[in-house]
Amino acid sequence: MSEFKMTTVEELEAATDRLLETGAKVGADAWQFRVKNQTPHCKFGETGVCCKICTMGPCRVTKKSPRGVCGCDVHGIVARNFLRFTAAGSATHSDHGREICNTLYQTAEDGNYKVKDPEKLLRIAKEWEIDTEGRDIYDVAHDVAYTALTEYGKPFGTQRFLKRAPKHTQELWEKNELAPHAIDREVSRSLHMTHMGCSSKPAPLIKQSIRSGLADGWGGSMMGTEFSDVMFGTPKPIDTEANLGVMSEENVNIVVHGHDPSLSEMICEYADDPKMIAYAKEKGAKGITVSGICCTSNEVAMRRGVPMAGNFLQQENIVLTGACEAIVVDVQCIFPALGPLSKCFHTKFVTTSPVAQMPDSDFIRFDAKTAAENAKEIIKMAIDNFENRKPELVHIPKLKQKATVGYSTEAIVKVLDGVANTQVDEMGTTKPLIECITSGVIRGAVAMVGCNNPKIRPDYAHVELMKKLIANDIIIISSGCSAQAAAKVGLMDKRAKDLCGAGLKRVCELADIPPVLHMGSCVDISRMVILASSLAKDSGLNISQLPVVGCAPEWMSEKAVSIGNYVVGTGIDTFLGIDPCVSGSDEVVDLLTGGTKDWVEASFTVEKDIDKLGDKMIERIEEKRNALGI
Amino acid sequence: MSEFKMTTVEELEAATDRLLETGAKVGADAWQFRVKNQTPHCKFGETGVCCKICTMGPCRVTKKSPRGVCGCDVHGIVARNFLRFTAAGSATHSDHGREICNTLYQTAEDGNYKVKDPEKLLRIAKEWEIDTEGRDIYDVAHDVAYTALTEYGKPFGTQRFLKRAPKHTQELWEKNELAPHAIDREVSRSLHMTHMGCSSKPAPLIKQSIRSGLADGWGGSMMGTEFSDVMFGTPKPIDTEANLGVMSEENVNIVVHGHDPSLSEMICEYADDPKMIAYAKEKGAKGITVSGICCTSNEVAMRRGVPMAGNFLQQENIVLTGACEAIVVDVQCIFPALGPLSKCFHTKFVTTSPVAQMPDSDFIRFDAKTAAENAKEIIKMAIDNFENRKPELVHIPKLKQKATVGYSTEAIVKVLDGVANTQVDEMGTTKPLIECITSGVIRGAVAMVGCNNPKIRPDYAHVELMKKLIANDIIIISSGCSAQAAAKVGLMDKRAKDLCGAGLKRVCELADIPPVLHMGSCVDISRMVILASSLAKDSGLNISQLPVVGCAPEWMSEKAVSIGNYVVGTGIDTFLGIDPCVSGSDEVVDLLTGGTKDWVEASFTVEKDIDKLGDKMIERIEEKRNALGI
Repeated sequence: MSEFKMTTVEELEAATDRLLETGAKVGADAWQFRVKNQTPHCKFGETGVCCKICTMGPCRVTKKSPRGVCGCDVHGIVARNFLRFTAAGSATHSDHGREICNTLYQTAEDGNYKVKDPEKLLRIAKEWEIDTEGRDIYDVAHDVAYTALTEYGKPFGTQRFLKRAPKHTQELWEKNELAPHAIDREVSRSLHMTHMGCSSKPAPLIKQSIRSGLADGWGGSMMGTEFSDVMFGTPKPIDTEANLGVMSEENVNIVVHGHDPSLSEMICEYADDPKMIAYAKEKGAKGITVSGICCTSNEVAMRRGVPMAGNFLQQENIVLTGACEAIVVDVQCIFPALGPLSKCFHTKFVTTSPVAQMPDSDFIRFDAKTAAENAKEIIKMAIDNFENRKPELVHIPKLKQKATVGYSTEAIVKVLDGVANTQVDEMGTTKPLIECITSGVIRGAVAMVGCNNPKIRPDYAHVELMKKLIANDIIIISSGCSAQAAAKVGLMDKRAKDLCGAGLKRVCELADIPPVLHMGSCVDISRMVILASSLAKDSGLNISQLPVVGCAPEWMSEKAVSIGNYVVGTGIDTFLGIDPCVSGSDEVVDLLTGGTKDWVEASFTVEKDIDKLGDKMIERIEEKRNALGI
Repeated sequence: MSEFKMTTVEELEAATDRLLETGAKVGADAWQFRVKNQTPHCKFGETGVCCKICTMGPCRVTKKSPRGVCGCDVHGIVARNFLRFTAAGSATHSDHGREICNTLYQTAEDGNYKVKDPEKLLRIAKEWEIDTEGRDIYDVAHDVAYTALTEYGKPFGTQRFLKRAPKHTQELWEKNELAPHAIDREVSRSLHMTHMGCSSKPAPLIKQSIRSGLADGWGGSMMGTEFSDVMFGTPKPIDTEANLGVMSEENVNIVVHGHDPSLSEMICEYADDPKMIAYAKEKGAKGITVSGICCTSNEVAMRRGVPMAGNFLQQENIVLTGACEAIVVDVQCIFPALGPLSKCFHTKFVTTSPVAQMPDSDFIRFDAKTAAENAKEIIKMAIDNFENRKPELVHIPKLKQKATVGYSTEAIVKVLDGVANTQVDEMGTTKPLIECITSGVIRGAVAMVGCNNPKIRPDYAHVELMKKLIANDIIIISSGCSAQAAAKVGLMDKRAKDLCGAGLKRVCELADIPPVLHMGSCVDISRMVILASSLAKDSGLNISQLPVVGCAPEWMSEKAVSIGNYVVGTGIDTFLGIDPCVSGSDEVVDLLTGGTKDWVEASFTVEKDIDKLGDKMIERIEEKRNALGI
C-alpha cells in the first residue's frame, strides 16, 4: 500500500490556477473573475432588507425609510424573503423527487428503467399499506409511484413518511402545526403568505419555512432518495477516486453534472457498452471515461463507483482541461457559464431537461421513455467530438485520491452489524454506534453538507472543519459538494483514520470505514434524518438530545436553506458558515437562532469564522453529552 | 332623478388630503410619505437585473459586470425574475381558489355555508362528468369540491376547465406545451426552473410564465369564481354606492378588506342580524354599516349590493376617517401599515387568516367550521368599540356615487337576451354583442383591471382611460380596483351613458346598462376569459381576432402579472401602464411584446404615458377590425 498523503487546499488551488492559464489563452471567463466584478455585493440584498414582491417598490429598509410603501417593516421583509428562499429550495428538491417518482412509474420488466432493489420497494409498499401479496413487482412499483406522486398534491392529510420519525418528533410537529401537507401545496402556500399584503409577522413566516422544509426533507427529497435506491440500487460501500485527475487524456471524457440519476445512470450504462467503446477506439480514443460533478456525481459514485471529477466550484475546470468531450447536465447548480466557456473549447455542453435550458448548449430532451436512445445519442456525440480536441489546450491536473463511498443508512447499519457481538447484541440497529457514543469513544456526529460558495475559500471550510472534528473523535457523515471536498483531499480514504482521535480511529479500524462517510447527494440528506431517527428510537432519546449536529459551511443555494429548515425542524442544531440573508432583522435572527427551539428543540447558528464554527459545534456536542450525563 | 355629475380625481385627492390632516394630528404614517422615503427606487430591481436566487450574490448586471457569479446573463436573470413574479401571483390567486374549494367541500344543508346556486353546481358537475342523477345536492357539492381540490395536485393531466376554451385556443396550448398541469405543480416547477443553475434561456422561462398564469386563470381563479357563485350566488345586476361617503357617522362601521368571500359573506350575514343591530343601538349607534375595500368589496357588492368604501390605495383612508370601528381582513393586498395606523385611532384591525398574520392586529382565526361564531365575535368586537371613537377625529368625506354592479358572464348574456329579437335571434348567446361590434355600433371591448400603484396618480389612469374608451364607443368590462375606481367616480352609474360615443350610448340605453360593467374581483378575470371564449365560439372567430384587449394601467401585485400572462395566454393583447421589471433585457422585452404571438397570438404592450396607452388600445382594436373587414 502506497503512503497516504492528503491533498491540500493549496494544491487544489494551484491546479485551478494552472487551468485558468489555459482559460486565459482562449479568452475564457471564470467565476473567479465574475466574483471580482460583482463585489461588493448589494448590502440591502445581503442583509435581506430589500423587497421586490410588488411594483410599488422595490423598497429598501434604512434608518431614513424604516418601512416599505405598504408599511411592511424590516422584520416582515426579511422573514418573507427567508420563506421564499426556503420554498424555492423545497420546490426544487421535491421536483427532482417527482421526476424520480415519475421514472419509477414508468419502470417495466423490459423498460429502460427497472426495479433493482425489490426488497426496498416492498418495504415501502408495506409501510404505505399498498398490497404486495403475490403481485408482480412492477404492478407494485406502479402503485407505489402513483401514491408517491399524490404526496405532492393530495387535498388532505400530511406527508406519509412523517411516521418514520420518532413519536416525540411527530408530536412536536402536530402541536406546532408544522406537519407538512401536500408538498406543492406548502410551496404555493409559502408564496401566498409572502405575497404583497399577506403575512408580515416573522413567527408564522418562519414556521412556514420549517413546514416547507419538512415537506422537502420528509417528502420530496426522501421519496427521491428512496425510489432512486429502488431503481438504481441502495448504495453499499464501494471504492472510487476523486478529483480532476480521474479524467483520462487518452479516453473520450464524458462528464455528467446535475442531480437526477435517471440521466446519469443511463449515460453510465451505455458508456460501458462494448459497441460504444469500440466506436470510441475507432475514433482514436483508448476508451470512454465517465466522471461526475456535483450531486449527479455523488449518485453514480455511490452506486457504480464512477469517479468524481469535482464539486460545484470546479465545474468550469472540467472544460478548462481541454479534454472534456461532453459535459452532460440535467438540473440544478449548473453554471450558465458553461455555455460560453464550452465555445472556447471543443467541449459539447449538452442540456437535457426542459427544466434547465441554457443558451449556448445542445439541447437533447431526455425522457424516461426514450432514455436509452437519448443516452446513446449523447455518447455518440461525445465520441465524435474526440477528434476536435485541441492538443495544445489539453491539461488534466494529476491530482486524485482514493475514496470509499456508498454509506446509505442501510449500509451503515450493516457495517455496525459487523462490529456487534452476534452473541449478545441485537442486529440491524444503530445500537453499536450508540454504545460508541455513550462510552465516549466517539463524542458525537456531524452531518457535513452543502455547496461551495466563493464567499468562503473553496473547500477550505469543509476540509478544515472535518479535520478538526475527526481529530476530536467526532464522526462525519457527509453529502453533496461537502462529501466531494472530503473525497478530493483524501478524507474518504480509509487511511485517513490516522487523522482521527484515538477513539474514532479505533472505530474506523474495527468497522473498516473512513472517518468521513459518504451518504450521497443533497436529496440524500433525507438519509441522515432517517439515521438520526433510528438513533433516537434505538437509544430511547429525543433526536434533539443526541450529540449530533448539522453543518453547511459553504452553502449557496436555496435548496441548502430548505435542508437547513428540515434538519432544524427534525430537532438537529444546524451550523452555517454563510448568513441566509437575515441579518437585517434582529427579530428574525432571534427566531432562527433561538426561537425555533420552542417548536422543534433545535435552531441555527451562523458563524463566518470557520475555526470558531468548528469550536461551536464541538461545544454543542459536549453540551448535549453533559445534559445526558455521558 | 337628480343631475348626474362625475366625481373628479381632484375631488378624490382633496378628500384624501383632508384625511391626511387628521392623520397629522395623531402622528399617523401614510403611503404618501413612505413613497417619498422609498424614492428613488433601486434601478437594478426596477429593471429586473438584480438576482438574489443564491448566496453567491446578490448579483447585479451592469456594463462592467455583464454576468452573475454563476455566469447567468441579463436575459436569464430578468426572465427568471419575471417567472418567479408570475408564479407567486398564480400561487396566491389559486390558493384563494383552494380556500373556496375547501369551503365548498364543507357546505351542508345545516352548515355555515350552503349551495345558493344549485343550477351552476350541477352544470359544472356535468361538465366534469360527476354523477348528479337523483343525488343530494350536497353530495354533489362534496364530489365537485374534492375533484376541484385534486386539480391542484393531480399527478397527471391538464386543467379540466381548459376544455371551455375554443378548440383553436386549446390546440395552440397543446402544440406549444402551454396547457397547465396541476396548479401547484406549475408553481413548484416555476421555482425549480428558476433555481440556481437551472433555466437561463428566456423563451422556456416565459413559456412557463404563461403556463403558470394559465394554471391560475383557467384553474385556481376560475374555480374560485365558479364555486363562490355556487355558494354565494351568481351575481346579477344590483345597485350599490361607492366611495368613502358610504360609511355612516351614526353607525358602527365595519369595513371588510381582502379577497375571500367566505369571511366577508359571513360578516355581512350577521351584521344584518336584528340582534346585532339591537346590540349596536344599545351601544349608542343607529345601526351597522358594512362596507368594503379591494376585492372583498367587489365580492359582496356584486352579490349583496354592499357599498364599496374604496380601493387599494384608499385603505388607510378608512382608518383616517376616525369612524371605522373594525377593519376586518383576510388575505392579500392588506397594508401592514394598518397595524400601526389603527393604533393611532380606536379602530380594531382584525386579521383572520393564518396566511396573512400581521403585527399590531387582533388575530381571530377564521375557519369554515366556526365561521358563524367567528363572524359574530368580530361584529360584537366592532360594536363594543363604537364608544371608543374620538369624535374630534371623525371626518367622513361626503363623496359617493351610485353604481350598478354584478355583471357576471351569465348576467351579461341575460342582458343581451333582453335586446335580442326573440323572433329571429338565438337566446342565451353573445351574438347580440357580436352584432353590435360587427356593425360598428360598438367598436370593441376593453377589460380594465388591476390595482392602484403610487407610481401612477391613483385612479387617474383607470378613469381617464375609461372615459376615453367609452367616448370612442368601446365598452368596458372591469374588475378589481379598476372597477372600484370606475364606481367611485360614477362610471358605473347608468347615467354615465352620456359620456359615451353615440353608438355605445344607444346600446347602454337599449340594454339598460352602464358603459363600464362591473365583472367582479381579480379572480373574476376568469369570467372575462370565459366571455371572450363565448364571443369567439359564437362568432366563429379565434379569440385573438376579436377587437378586444385587456388593460392594467396601475397594477402593482404579482397576481396582476399572473393575470397578464393568462390573458395574453388566452389570446388577448394586454396593455400595461407599469413595466413588469423586465426593461433590463431586450430579449425578454422582445418576447413579451412580440415573441409570445408565435405561441398564443397575443402579447403585452407597456406604455407609461397613459394617454398614449389609450391611443394604442384603440389602434389595436381598429387593426383587429380592419383585419376582419368590419
